[in-house]
Amino acid sequence: MTYEPIDYLPYDFANRRHIGPSPEEMAEMFDVLGVSGLDQLIEETVPKAIRQDEPLDFGKPLSERELIYRLREVADRNKVLTSLIGQGYHGTVTPPAIQRNILENPAWYTAYTPYQPEISQGRLEALLNFQTMVCDLTGLEIANASLLDEATACAEAMTMAQRVAKSKAKAFFVDENCHPQNIAVMKTRAEPLGIEVIVGAPDALDPGRVFGAIFQYPGTHGHVRDFTDEMAALHDAQAVGIVSADPLALCLLKEPGAMGADIAVGSTQRFGVPVGYGGPHAAYMACRDEMKRAMPGRIVGVSVDSHGNRAYRLSLQTREQHIRREKATSNVCTAQALLAVMAGFYAVFHGPKGLRAIAQRIHRKTVRMVKGLEAAGFKVEPDTYFDTITVDVGLLQRGVLQAAVREGLNLRRVGKTRVGITLDERTRPATVEAVWRAFGLVKKDEASESEYRLPEALIRTSEYLQHDVFHMNRAETEMMRYMRRLADRDLALDRAMIPLGSCTMKLNSAAEMMPVSWREFSMIHPYVPKDQARGYTAMIEDLNAKLCQITGYDAISMQPNSGAQGEYAGLLTIRRWQRARGQGDRNVCLIPVNAHGTNPASAQMVGWKVVAVKCDDHGSIDIADFRAKAEKHSDALAACMITYPSTHGVFEETVKEVCSITHEHGGQVYIDGANMNAMVGLSRPGDLGGDVSHLNLHKTFCIPHGGGGPGMGPIGVKQHLVEHLPGNPLDEEGGAVSAASFGSPSLLPISWSYCLMMGGGGLTQATRVAILNANYIAKRLEGAYDVLYRGGKGWVAHECILDTRPFEKSAGVTVEDIAKRLMDAGFHAPTMSWPVAGTLMVEPTESETKAELDRFCDAMLAIRAEIRAIEDGQMDREVNPLKLAPHTMEDLVRDWDRPYTREQGCFPPGAFRVDKYWPPVNRVDNVYGDRHLICTCPPMSEYAEAAE
Amino acid sequence: MTYEPIDYLPYDFANRRHIGPSPEEMAEMFDVLGVSGLDQLIEETVPKAIRQDEPLDFGKPLSERELIYRLREVADRNKVLTSLIGQGYHGTVTPPAIQRNILENPAWYTAYTPYQPEISQGRLEALLNFQTMVCDLTGLEIANASLLDEATACAEAMTMAQRVAKSKAKAFFVDENCHPQNIAVMKTRAEPLGIEVIVGAPDALDPGRVFGAIFQYPGTHGHVRDFTDEMAALHDAQAVGIVSADPLALCLLKEPGAMGADIAVGSTQRFGVPVGYGGPHAAYMACRDEMKRAMPGRIVGVSVDSHGNRAYRLSLQTREQHIRREKATSNVCTAQALLAVMAGFYAVFHGPKGLRAIAQRIHRKTVRMVKGLEAAGFKVEPDTYFDTITVDVGLLQRGVLQAAVREGLNLRRVGKTRVGITLDERTRPATVEAVWRAFGLVKKDEASESEYRLPEALIRTSEYLQHDVFHMNRAETEMMRYMRRLADRDLALDRAMIPLGSCTMKLNSAAEMMPVSWREFSMIHPYVPKDQARGYTAMIEDLNAKLCQITGYDAISMQPNSGAQGEYAGLLTIRRWQRARGQGDRNVCLIPVNAHGTNPASAQMVGWKVVAVKCDDHGSIDIADFRAKAEKHSDALAACMITYPSTHGVFEETVKEVCSITHEHGGQVYIDGANMNAMVGLSRPGDLGGDVSHLNLHKTFCIPHGGGGPGMGPIGVKQHLVEHLPGNPLDEEGGAVSAASFGSPSLLPISWSYCLMMGGGGLTQATRVAILNANYIAKRLEGAYDVLYRGGKGWVAHECILDTRPFEKSAGVTVEDIAKRLMDAGFHAPTMSWPVAGTLMVEPTESETKAELDRFCDAMLAIRAEIRAIEDGQMDREVNPLKLAPHTMEDLVRDWDRPYTREQGCFPPGAFRVDKYWPPVNRVDNVYGDRHLICTCPPMSEYAEAAE
Repeated sequence: MTYEPIDYLPYDFANRRHIGPSPEEMAEMFDVLGVSGLDQLIEETVPKAIRQDEPLDFGKPLSERELIYRLREVADRNKVLTSLIGQGYHGTVTPPAIQRNILENPAWYTAYTPYQPEISQGRLEALLNFQTMVCDLTGLEIANASLLDEATACAEAMTMAQRVAKSKAKAFFVDENCHPQNIAVMKTRAEPLGIEVIVGAPDALDPGRVFGAIFQYPGTHGHVRDFTDEMAALHDAQAVGIVSADPLALCLLKEPGAMGADIAVGSTQRFGVPVGYGGPHAAYMACRDEMKRAMPGRIVGVSVDSHGNRAYRLSLQTREQHIRREKATSNVCTAQALLAVMAGFYAVFHGPKGLRAIAQRIHRKTVRMVKGLEAAGFKVEPDTYFDTITVDVGLLQRGVLQAAVREGLNLRRVGKTRVGITLDERTRPATVEAVWRAFGLVKKDEASESEYRLPEALIRTSEYLQHDVFHMNRAETEMMRYMRRLADRDLALDRAMIPLGSCTMKLNSAAEMMPVSWREFSMIHPYVPKDQARGYTAMIEDLNAKLCQITGYDAISMQPNSGAQGEYAGLLTIRRWQRARGQGDRNVCLIPVNAHGTNPASAQMVGWKVVAVKCDDHGSIDIADFRAKAEKHSDALAACMITYPSTHGVFEETVKEVCSITHEHGGQVYIDGANMNAMVGLSRPGDLGGDVSHLNLHKTFCIPHGGGGPGMGPIGVKQHLVEHLPGNPLDEEGGAVSAASFGSPSLLPISWSYCLMMGGGGLTQATRVAILNANYIAKRLEGAYDVLYRGGKGWVAHECILDTRPFEKSAGVTVEDIAKRLMDAGFHAPTMSWPVAGTLMVEPTESETKAELDRFCDAMLAIRAEIRAIEDGQMDREVNPLKLAPHTMEDLVRDWDRPYTREQGCFPPGAFRVDKYWPPVNRVDNVYGDRHLICTCPPMSEYAEAAE
Repeated sequence: MTYEPIDYLPYDFANRRHIGPSPEEMAEMFDVLGVSGLDQLIEETVPKAIRQDEPLDFGKPLSERELIYRLREVADRNKVLTSLIGQGYHGTVTPPAIQRNILENPAWYTAYTPYQPEISQGRLEALLNFQTMVCDLTGLEIANASLLDEATACAEAMTMAQRVAKSKAKAFFVDENCHPQNIAVMKTRAEPLGIEVIVGAPDALDPGRVFGAIFQYPGTHGHVRDFTDEMAALHDAQAVGIVSADPLALCLLKEPGAMGADIAVGSTQRFGVPVGYGGPHAAYMACRDEMKRAMPGRIVGVSVDSHGNRAYRLSLQTREQHIRREKATSNVCTAQALLAVMAGFYAVFHGPKGLRAIAQRIHRKTVRMVKGLEAAGFKVEPDTYFDTITVDVGLLQRGVLQAAVREGLNLRRVGKTRVGITLDERTRPATVEAVWRAFGLVKKDEASESEYRLPEALIRTSEYLQHDVFHMNRAETEMMRYMRRLADRDLALDRAMIPLGSCTMKLNSAAEMMPVSWREFSMIHPYVPKDQARGYTAMIEDLNAKLCQITGYDAISMQPNSGAQGEYAGLLTIRRWQRARGQGDRNVCLIPVNAHGTNPASAQMVGWKVVAVKCDDHGSIDIADFRAKAEKHSDALAACMITYPSTHGVFEETVKEVCSITHEHGGQVYIDGANMNAMVGLSRPGDLGGDVSHLNLHKTFCIPHGGGGPGMGPIGVKQHLVEHLPGNPLDEEGGAVSAASFGSPSLLPISWSYCLMMGGGGLTQATRVAILNANYIAKRLEGAYDVLYRGGKGWVAHECILDTRPFEKSAGVTVEDIAKRLMDAGFHAPTMSWPVAGTLMVEPTESETKAELDRFCDAMLAIRAEIRAIEDGQMDREVNPLKLAPHTMEDLVRDWDRPYTREQGCFPPGAFRVDKYWPPVNRVDNVYGDRHLICTCPPMSEYAEAAE
């Protein structure tokens, strides 16, 4: 007997799970748009000239379950040994409560950067905890909310030192005890900026020759040295002293601030964040108070809301690259927020006593291990250490390393005769015994050591983590509730659309996220022998191949940890190629005025001069101006940086011409990949004329935003640039931009899973629906808001700019008022004032359903009606729901003397009734926060806030 | 150099994570209580006579990380093969979104049974979805919110049939095609009740001889038969027809309701719930509307709240055992709520089309596999089937089964010559090919089959899952938000204390929960060869040994899936022992009036007569009455059932005397383990004179409540009873009470982990702190509420009963008003009206911090002040915050014409300010709900509730 064919594919991830609008919803949307279907819409939106020839083809897409099979196969090819390599990466115990409730919880990992403070109080508090922890441990006054990795942090500290030093010296001193990858990344950064890097022993420091110096503490081979004298000497020479310090060691050792350091950097990886083959982890940076305005990265601060209640926010945002453009001296705009939150919670979880005890245990184990080796006659260096030592084994080096592997251990190869060993929180007695066996010793590890081998003068005497939050009751019940309360204060993708025009906030599916927690991905040290990471290698090769097919490039480097770092790496690659061709003096970079703010900052970082190019009234590059500038700077033209589709949300027809002009004048074309979600499967930057692009894996390829990081910004390049891509971080001259060869590889299963489950067709359909969703919003808001910039046929690309500028005059309503009012309806605001001041840019992505788009449009239309009521004089210009937004429970319970009802204020169209999201604070006062800068936890703690 | 010793143990799970009060908090609590410390308090609370001699000793407690090591070792001893055994357990794909957002989310798994509907709307909706799914698939009108497992559901259906059948026949017919474990459990149940079980082929049914009959559909060996004629014949004989049906098969096959079945039962395991070596999974039961009042288990229904808004609640609670005591004919009081929620979401996730497509795919694969076998000359039975067939291989049976294992497959051994194969959602082409290879065939599985081998007359023609919720947009973004919204409506342990006096709601730690998701535990079929479950065996043996040491018993049976089932299994064990000694006619069970309601119900189920024993004014057993009753029934005395410490929360000094009296009169002592959390490490029921006890692993041993299940109720027995414990479910005469030998083994890593991390000392300390916490509450509420029942020295045990009865007269305030008012403060109410009507019983557990206890006490004291204001005439008896509680956002936004402020109404002491929890509905109308019974999803769906 034969039945009807199966016409429903239950495991079709692309169309059933990832893409929001159902077929029925899409049909309704076509009606609204007046198109026959997606084909017509795309035909009329994406110019033929830029369309790619061949459809993407990755074979049959996988179901969620087939994906898990595939991932298991790949995971099983990674070998999980116990790595005692150290060198900045350590075994750590992620408390299960933190793993489950933060890392694996969409309320945390799907959140956006906390630019809208009213709906971000939870993660702002968590990040403030992180900053407080960093300040306390380093003994410095101000800390930022994390940087990409320790090596980058070192490089940032170097350039920051140059900015703040009164010394006019051009050189920078680097302690030879720094981790090799730190030295490599600093050298990469220094070269285009004309900074001479002097690597040497601390004793060789000549303060008068340098604007700053950095020291590793403890040193990469375990040396523990007091840098107080070096700091004083540097200060005498008006230079800046930097210490790159292991925060766990600081629980026992004198803090950099007490040595007189100006800046401290380091990695908080070992505070509960798995090594993950290199990342992601949160690096930290702290500095003395007077330098705070020179510090890169985000800083969370304390302010008040309109009721005078405490509220957290990002402070000193005017320092940031997106405001300063080419005046920026750093392009940092991503933190490692999720990882910083984890590290901060690790400190909350253990408290100062717990951290100290953990550090003590590690040290005591190290001493026991060393004594065992010494008793057997091995020569161990140094005499005093925290957790790291080396053993000179002469010709036996290879044998010891191999024996260690047989024991399930990775030790560090140091020079030709030495072996390095670093113990950590995961070290068990069995681990110590295995180390001994690798050295030929068979003996039991008896846990009775009480001798310490820390230098007496370096014992820490100051207190740390004195704030209440680090002394809260750390019963798991209480911790769990604290994490839940913070999570509940924030609005993330697990509750509502986040229609940011500058960031693609799409589904981060559970299936994609699951392998991130697998030990075969999370517990691989970045510097293991290659044969232990074959799964990673295979996965990265396959993902690279797919990304090459998607972009039209010939190779991918996974090294950059953010989009901005991708830009920088891409420009460096161009620069190295030009230098190799003897054109290293080319130093002009053409950048349209509507470019991402990171573009000019990145150009600056490779030593280029930024020449701005005008845009026309349609938001497109002014071709005449572009040509004129290219001609004018023909001899010096290094590159142009363009974004496609443009930041105005339009597929410019002239893109190929722009590329040709650049090439004609000897420049290279950098196409910013931020808007790649509008192109995948339809158009390839490599075909348009691009030589390099970065891809924001955390936008287009589903790595979650994590509340402001992690990100990944790999770059694709054409063949001629391949050999100039960033090199191995263990090669000091290799031009590495990150500490790990593949950036943050433990995130890559997410993007790979996405590609595998979507397949080429699914990815293309996602792009098409992203464009459909944007046009649907533009259409529904027609008449209420003017949409700036459309393509030739009147369609927008994957985002649209709503012109809210007229309302300031007509009703006194600013774009900020609208953004805050959207919170009442349960939405995160679209991107404000970028790329056009006073406007809103909306990018719904393909993952939002029509129902959610309609909810958003309803909210926007109601806001327009409220504006009209003000325009018509029916509502006051100052006392109205827009100006007083967002509304909180606090408003509702207080006396209500407003000319509109509670109902109108709190439940505008779009708001859920039963499931209403309440911002925990009223509008935050930005000016107050910057004037009264507090960037560590305030005395009274928010979490003990049961009402009186 | 030597530093201070490490005086802080950062990995001390017991004292840092599990136990709530910190040492500092405990010191404050001792001051309040006026004791020198825990030793004194325990000395004065727990009578010396009942204290155990030796402290618990399990060796060194493990840290979270050492636990994971140990678990990995054990897990690695389980071998994960692909099991095609079928027999009621199937491979299934848990959608990752459901795994992450339900199974691994404390908002779902830490919730309590939804007895307080106002703070349980999320899971009530999810369970209503489940019921609707069951009704639709079975074609019957009413479904309950799940039962323990399919075998139990069959037994429940049998006894329900006896209740509702007009036929007075004493026999019950069981289709020989039923799964063996179903037959076994029905036989166990039937025997003490005097029901004759007739097992035979459907054709052998003699309707006049039976009050009911049950048929398996499809049969255990794959037969698919239409039971319409049998149903009609049964009805003619005034007997009841039952079908035990696979719900996935019902997506293709004619539904039981259409055959005329009165009752349908089955397992929803294959709707996304892993097999887990036998459980937990949600069984279902559905029936015709007219039988609903006879149906066991919980039923979610639809009612309205005081504003007339829709609200869900548990319906028809008066049917339940906790009300009916010895009149009950079932002791069911636990559902498998968490698993039912998962199964319901699986249906929401796939919708009717998706489920149908999944069923079709499985069937088509089965047909392809069969054709391959047939082509090679194998004889396959039956001719028509859904997913299960058998192959007669004669003498080759052993060889085929072994070859299959080598291929990574478990097939089913059927008789001496046949091999059974059941395909499932996880079956891949590679699986089919491996099956063929096990039969010696090497060929590719080509996915082009379109022939169906379902009986044409049995093709399903009716629609199902027509409700909106099964047709919502199933994009993962939308599904995730729906799950989040439902979770947010409920108040679970992840937000606040749940101080239930009848259930121990303590920490379910993340570390304990993690292994539940590991495939080595979750993907083992219950009937695999023993050598594939060595890890389970080792774990269960070790856990048993620990539980024996804790209880003083000699052996443990893990089979019971709930406390009530444990009672039943314990009484059965006693009964079998007595029968073996020729005392099978003993049938009187002494039960104090304050016993758990399940006790008399369980006694009833083994055919015993319940004789109630009085309690004295202190809530203790009236010894004189006990002795008199024992003497009176001396010849017939089967057992007594007591709870220790008593349900009144007192350590009775007379417990040993009660046991002695019982033994003197030839009875056995059943000590209810519900209050074991007050005893672990201090006192052992086995030492007091108990012969049997059950342990609620979901209370004392940290299995989470899951919103109303899963539970585990293993029993401990003295040596003489060991051979009479429940037997192997695959032995039809073995006296099994559950379908799987170890009940719900995939939960056991939780309890085992708890024991390993706590160690003997930690477990004992937990007990001591549980007693401290209860006494602290009693002390703080002194003067405001009278505490009923205290021990000799004035202390309570681990819970205390607050007398709220006077307020009804003095202020018109009922215990319910207080319970609802506590919701305004963000608390789940204590147990209401049990064991004493009109009172509240509070059990804080050891996991709550002093801060949370204080928050609760503040709320209770404020409530007392409100009562006093009514008593004093300052507040109206009807219009006051107690009567109008709980307050919702809806109240706040509406016009407010109450004699108290919004602030007073919504933010009573104890309520969080920023993090306020809002009940989503006002007080629910119970009477309306029972009068207008709706137990499936109502037409308009709650989830599309964006405000107009």
